[in-house]
Amino acid sequence: MLKFFFAPNTCAVASHIALEEAGAVYETVRVDFRSNQQRSPDYLAINPKGRVPALATERGILTETPAILAFIAQSYPAAQLAPLNDPFEFARVQAFNSYLCSTVHVAHAHRVRGYRWADDPAAIAEMQRKVPTTMGDCFELIETTMFEGPWAMGANYTICDPYLFTISQWLEGDGVDIRRFPKVLALSERMHARPAVQRALAAQHD
Amino acid sequence: MLKFFFAPNTCAVASHIALEEAGAVYETVRVDFRSNQQRSPDYLAINPKGRVPALATERGILTETPAILAFIAQSYPAAQLAPLNDPFEFARVQAFNSYLCSTVHVAHAHRVRGYRWADDPAAIAEMQRKVPTTMGDCFELIETTMFEGPWAMGANYTICDPYLFTISQWLEGDGVDIRRFPKVLALSERMHARPAVQRALAAQHD
Repeated sequence: MLKFFFAPNTCAVASHIALEEAGAVYETVRVDFRSNQQRSPDYLAINPKGRVPALATERGILTETPAILAFIAQSYPAAQLAPLNDPFEFARVQAFNSYLCSTVHVAHAHRVRGYRWADDPAAIAEMQRKVPTTMGDCFELIETTMFEGPWAMGANYTICDPYLFTISQWLEGDGVDIRRFPKVLALSERMHARPAVQRALAAQHD
Repeated sequence: MLKFFFAPNTCAVASHIALEEAGAVYETVRVDFRSNQQRSPDYLAINPKGRVPALATERGILTETPAILAFIAQSYPAAQLAPLNDPFEFARVQAFNSYLCSTVHVAHAHRVRGYRWADDPAAIAEMQRKVPTTMGDCFELIETTMFEGPWAMGANYTICDPYLFTISQWLEGDGVDIRRFPKVLALSERMHARPAVQRALAAQHD
């Protein structure tokens, strides 16, 4: 059976929702970030990067949100979570998720994990100071040029939606008012109404 | 015909190599970073993110290296650039490229584009100071746990190889001696010997 390693309120929420949308049978393992369990030898044996999510399958362990999301979409085609038979449309989905991963999540991380890129407390504070600007700019781009509506990629719900939803829930903590982005706000409301999302969010906090 | 937008020595090298490996028919457009052409209205109409690479297809424009690489692999299956019919193995390829994109490239970017995440020159200098450490740590993880050999993913050349090769060429500028990582160094030598790589690198500097 699949085993899903997560920590609440992290980007793992996206894959958790996708597993629920897919109807996957899986068990969850909560990694306790408060006790720094992600750096424990046991967890590093699962994911040497010391991060979540990780998805243990019968064939080995997968990491990285965009990869896990595409894996879920390909492994459960009946759930229609991505345009699997159209390389161009699939690439658009992947480009959206790659932007979330490498630009938006990274912008956010400068508020909570600035120590990754600088040691000096003053520099870390400077990074934190810019997060509302960078996250606001990212979501401005999403709202005005990337988001098609009513779902991120247009008419069909895809693996972009749980990922965008997940990161959009960080905006308030990042000092950005989500109401600046009506399409993103509407997506958030649509997502909260989905049973799969409700199940995933509830399971995160069991 | 495909139109490929690139700038020399950027991560666009990876997609450029993949296009050559695939035997794709395409034309290239060099974006002049020295004159900040990536922020010009003309280029922002192509890629609102103001970055390279971008790949214009008959159906629209694709961005983000991991997405473009997977698109090339899927569009030219005869080139066998990824395990297309195995969702687990495909996800491993994608996880590798996602790590390169969201962690390794981002670590490097703190040397040359620190202004993305802080305004204060002292903070930007602090970020630059840490780049040899973060890039060294990334490649240590690649060398010891991710790289299978002789290619990144094992016996078969994949879209991970041009991407890893591309970023490995930045190590010297980032203050990291590539000889610390014998497998990565050997990959670099293998890559330089490939005609497709030679063609792409030559075309970058035409």
